[in-house]
Amino acid sequence: MITFESDYTTGCCPEILSRLVETNLEQVSGYGKDKYCQSAEEKIKKVCNAPDAQVEFIVGGTQTNQTIIAAMLQRYQGVIAAKTGHIACHEAGAIEYSGHKVIELPQVLGKLKASDVRNCLEIFYKDESHDHMVFPGMVYISHPTEYGTLYSLKELTELSQVCHDYDIPLFMDGARLGYGLMSKTTDVTIQDIARLTDVFYIGGTKVGALCGEAVVFTHGNRPEHFVTMKKQNGSLLAKGRLLGIQFDTLFTDDLYFKIAKHAIDMAERLKGIIEKKNIPFFLESPTNQQFVVLENKRMEELKKQVGFNFWETIDEDHTAVRFATCWSTTAEDLDFLENIL
Amino acid sequence: MITFESDYTTGCCPEILSRLVETNLEQVSGYGKDKYCQSAEEKIKKVCNAPDAQVEFIVGGTQTNQTIIAAMLQRYQGVIAAKTGHIACHEAGAIEYSGHKVIELPQVLGKLKASDVRNCLEIFYKDESHDHMVFPGMVYISHPTEYGTLYSLKELTELSQVCHDYDIPLFMDGARLGYGLMSKTTDVTIQDIARLTDVFYIGGTKVGALCGEAVVFTHGNRPEHFVTMKKQNGSLLAKGRLLGIQFDTLFTDDLYFKIAKHAIDMAERLKGIIEKKNIPFFLESPTNQQFVVLENKRMEELKKQVGFNFWETIDEDHTAVRFATCWSTTAEDLDFLENIL
Amino acid sequence: MITFESDYTTGCCPEILSRLVETNLEQVSGYGKDKYCQSAEEKIKKVCNAPDAQVEFIVGGTQTNQTIIAAMLQRYQGVIAAKTGHIACHEAGAIEYSGHKVIELPQVLGKLKASDVRNCLEIFYKDESHDHMVFPGMVYISHPTEYGTLYSLKELTELSQVCHDYDIPLFMDGARLGYGLMSKTTDVTIQDIARLTDVFYIGGTKVGALCGEAVVFTHGNRPEHFVTMKKQNGSLLAKGRLLGIQFDTLFTDDLYFKIAKHAIDMAERLKGIIEKKNIPFFLESPTNQQFVVLENKRMEELKKQVGFNFWETIDEDHTAVRFATCWSTTAEDLDFLENIL
Amino acid sequence: MITFESDYTTGCCPEILSRLVETNLEQVSGYGKDKYCQSAEEKIKKVCNAPDAQVEFIVGGTQTNQTIIAAMLQRYQGVIAAKTGHIACHEAGAIEYSGHKVIELPQVLGKLKASDVRNCLEIFYKDESHDHMVFPGMVYISHPTEYGTLYSLKELTELSQVCHDYDIPLFMDGARLGYGLMSKTTDVTIQDIARLTDVFYIGGTKVGALCGEAVVFTHGNRPEHFVTMKKQNGSLLAKGRLLGIQFDTLFTDDLYFKIAKHAIDMAERLKGIIEKKNIPFFLESPTNQQFVVLENKRMEELKKQVGFNFWETIDEDHTAVRFATCWSTTAEDLDFLENIL
Repeated sequence: MITFESDYTTGCCPEILSRLVETNLEQVSGYGKDKYCQSAEEKIKKVCNAPDAQVEFIVGGTQTNQTIIAAMLQRYQGVIAAKTGHIACHEAGAIEYSGHKVIELPQVLGKLKASDVRNCLEIFYKDESHDHMVFPGMVYISHPTEYGTLYSLKELTELSQVCHDYDIPLFMDGARLGYGLMSKTTDVTIQDIARLTDVFYIGGTKVGALCGEAVVFTHGNRPEHFVTMKKQNGSLLAKGRLLGIQFDTLFTDDLYFKIAKHAIDMAERLKGIIEKKNIPFFLESPTNQQFVVLENKRMEELKKQVGFNFWETIDEDHTAVRFATCWSTTAEDLDFLENIL
Repeated sequence: MITFESDYTTGCCPEILSRLVETNLEQVSGYGKDKYCQSAEEKIKKVCNAPDAQVEFIVGGTQTNQTIIAAMLQRYQGVIAAKTGHIACHEAGAIEYSGHKVIELPQVLGKLKASDVRNCLEIFYKDESHDHMVFPGMVYISHPTEYGTLYSLKELTELSQVCHDYDIPLFMDGARLGYGLMSKTTDVTIQDIARLTDVFYIGGTKVGALCGEAVVFTHGNRPEHFVTMKKQNGSLLAKGRLLGIQFDTLFTDDLYFKIAKHAIDMAERLKGIIEKKNIPFFLESPTNQQFVVLENKRMEELKKQVGFNFWETIDEDHTAVRFATCWSTTAEDLDFLENIL
Repeated sequence: MITFESDYTTGCCPEILSRLVETNLEQVSGYGKDKYCQSAEEKIKKVCNAPDAQVEFIVGGTQTNQTIIAAMLQRYQGVIAAKTGHIACHEAGAIEYSGHKVIELPQVLGKLKASDVRNCLEIFYKDESHDHMVFPGMVYISHPTEYGTLYSLKELTELSQVCHDYDIPLFMDGARLGYGLMSKTTDVTIQDIARLTDVFYIGGTKVGALCGEAVVFTHGNRPEHFVTMKKQNGSLLAKGRLLGIQFDTLFTDDLYFKIAKHAIDMAERLKGIIEKKNIPFFLESPTNQQFVVLENKRMEELKKQVGFNFWETIDEDHTAVRFATCWSTTAEDLDFLENIL
Repeated sequence: MITFESDYTTGCCPEILSRLVETNLEQVSGYGKDKYCQSAEEKIKKVCNAPDAQVEFIVGGTQTNQTIIAAMLQRYQGVIAAKTGHIACHEAGAIEYSGHKVIELPQVLGKLKASDVRNCLEIFYKDESHDHMVFPGMVYISHPTEYGTLYSLKELTELSQVCHDYDIPLFMDGARLGYGLMSKTTDVTIQDIARLTDVFYIGGTKVGALCGEAVVFTHGNRPEHFVTMKKQNGSLLAKGRLLGIQFDTLFTDDLYFKIAKHAIDMAERLKGIIEKKNIPFFLESPTNQQFVVLENKRMEELKKQVGFNFWETIDEDHTAVRFATCWSTTAEDLDFLENIL
């Protein structure tokens, strides 16, 4: 059955597989010290226009969030996130399991407002008993957000300014970064992100790789003994080449951007279909995830023919669901969907 | 300077000191296995009308919350609390430090609504991806709350019912329990609490003891190996007698209730003074903590004459502050306050 | 440069790559719920002769140890291991980071003695203050050990008996399991392991896969909510297919055993070369890792020509080093080594 | 029944109780910001001849060890301790529960040897894979040790030198410090300890207080945000006065030293009795704890008449037991013991 349930239903870009095959018998060192990781790091620094950046590769998203946050926070600090942020609600408490509070702030379309963050920090430091409270030690945002929405350059600049004013790092979860960068409406480039955040990651798992996220410490600010902390977190891969080769391929000839653009093109066509069929959107998303509202009866019938994802209950009779495109979505997949919708 | 800044500014009931002096040279075993702890346990079970209860003594409130919550939750579970609950905002992340998320729900006058808790649990179990979320494994309430407010018997019964329906324990932080029980307006008794909660504690530190909280597992539900978990949490006191003797004294001749009643009587007089002086209340509290709104200029002047507690910023010109009475507040203290207000 | 520094210097069996290519565009569900994971699970259960077993796939070894141990222990329990066990010394404290003590016992050639384990448990329960101690809650062994040695069937049976007597699980780290099973001298089969342990894993990373370890809960004893605990540990892979496909391939037509046998054959030839060259062994290993003692001067020269691994300092002039074979070691690699040794 | 089972069987020095009574109605701030804590701090700094020291008060020993170690270590570090150190074996894994490994080294009469510590650190930094290991980040010693033995000034100086050479703090658990300082044979003063360690504590619980340990950061090296970390650990006492008053009293007119000397005098007499009765010592202890070997039959009879503590099983027929004196031991207690031994 054709499915739009997520952007990780297929394997990876054929270019990656070819590269894995070609390099398979080469002997290289483990734990990320191989030439492919080094080459990928250089390419990523270049595309980010960030010569002082340091790049680390980690297998999956939750693992990356957990590893980065626990490595950058002091033990008396927590991380500010939108109430709907992935670390706040869909990582089974991985951050708290590492000992840190996720300080939840309200969200608007999945986004944190810079003014809310500033307010939170101001109140904290004004509170005479703040020594009895969790210190806000980092701001976490996802871009695209869990709702497929995007920060504008202005919003990102404001968030960066707040973090700078309070001397805490801004961390961007870019599990779906490619789809954000290739969105038709965005004014944010990867160079902007490298300039405005302190650490971010370029998602591979959901953008054409078998697995892997490339973490960018944007200005030589990788924590000391990071490799030991990765090991301690269980996130140091023995055959680091698996990640290096994938990202080296993704950042050769703009592959990462091309495949993300394809997914966005498919998403735009998907939006057109949904509009044509008069199915109401749950919210407006400029990226590869589209959220619509279905009557439950209709939803149950549709489920038998095509895959999609439960999002949230609207009322007794309606449910919000998600359709996602990705690098491997085809025109035929959309033709099929158009026919049955 | 006379101060109303908190209910822990003085030492303890003289009866406790006398008892410490009398028993000082008796040799008893450590770690809570002494006869005073046993006697205190029996008296508390009796006053709670809970013959199957088990009682444990711990030195302080945050320590008690941390020890109880981490002992009763599975590692994949978090604890539901009001956004204003002590564990959510004023314990420096002690619960998260133990690995567990505090699942914050909205509050009304510091209280959790049973319908919000039920809704949270319903949504959780309906969510098809709840395996990727923190399981709600306990409900935490404070009574009196951090705002000095109280649950009614009906509200408490409803919360108990929700917890029962979802088979998770209801835990009451009773750091100021005495003041709640002796409030003029409450319809909740300690027997009700023992019947409706799964675990609660009777605060000593803020109600006449030098230190100490008496934890009541209401129906023989103390977790296995609790003593080892206390030790692991650093909350097993070597000279357990210090806690046993204090609670044994507090639960002899209704001392606990008498001193709490005194504090309530003083608080009622304090309310009268505030009304007479036309100072606006920040909220209506039926217990020993009274919250009022002061103009900042007035506040600064008053600070030089009497102690009280910053609560929160209202606007640029106004601040909410707290005045607390306790077992040792005297009529003279209030006369003095009346004069200067 | 040819290297024998470890058994994870090359990619993976070509059969795995072919299978990844073939299945690449198939759409399957994430998080290990795909048909490849199911098929791999069935094949593993069959080869283990363990119809009630449950199989889970995790990306790497440290991650697997951390996830399994923290999921199976109560919080007041620790895990018994040899002082030289991987979790005791080479995982950067990943177990302690999860809150659990590694209770270190002496080792003999990298192995735990059943009598030492029994003694440790007996002393623990006899100690009148054991409530103030970490409860031994699991026994961890590695097979092959970190020194390439193997438990005999008798030794394994005795360890199993001790664990059974004290009702704690026996956990076998099988990161290099294939090489142990195919050793010329072993009398232990995978069915024995499935019968005698409570949980073990079949290493993929070091035995022909790109990554991945297959955890076998041998008798339906997978902990409840294991998927949530994996998520919490950052060890739940989104594209679970990557692990499923690899293990499904490894357990088709005995591929896992064939490639492990090849590595053992190569190791036997390597031993012959070492003997012929009169280089002293550091210890006798019947598996794919061979440990020899080199004069430091010789070692430094050799380093320029071939890769191998520092093991430990013997004295000022001598060092123990490791040469490892694997599925991809060729006769030519050994010819080369023979020439330069 | 008279008991020698531990040095925490009685309450506290009468001087402390008097002081608690006298000060009981004074209103002071909470959380250790009261004048008694300040005064005690000054007195302790003076007696230590350490003008830059900072003093913090914590209720109990395990709590103190847990709070100090977790506040001073980086998360990738562990603490070196003797295998018999309190944190290694009798604190229910409180250190590991905080995420840190206790790196166990051999002991000689309960003491760490400086050469073993140096060796451990040397090997660690020489090991090429030390990034995969727990970094040794602190050395923990107890003085007196768990066996009642003492470091000589030379031994302490050597340990201090090793720590200095490797730039890690030396931490002394002084739960029974007074008895060590007053030992007839020691050449170590409290000023030596303040000079040679980076942090140590002066035990109150076992030396005449109801509870409390005074932590001394010897050279202005208290970790930043220590109060928040105490709160997070549940070790910040609301009525800090309880600790301040006790230590202020103990360090007035040398009370701490006088009561410790009394206990040592009693221990010397106890040793004489044991010798006279030809009961073999388990080991030679110069402090208030005396360890002897009893035949099991004799031990069982004796248990009915006097209290003492199980220490460890020697063989099937013999057991090592502990007799402890303390500030409140009387000549009559010893007369009684002499009669029945």
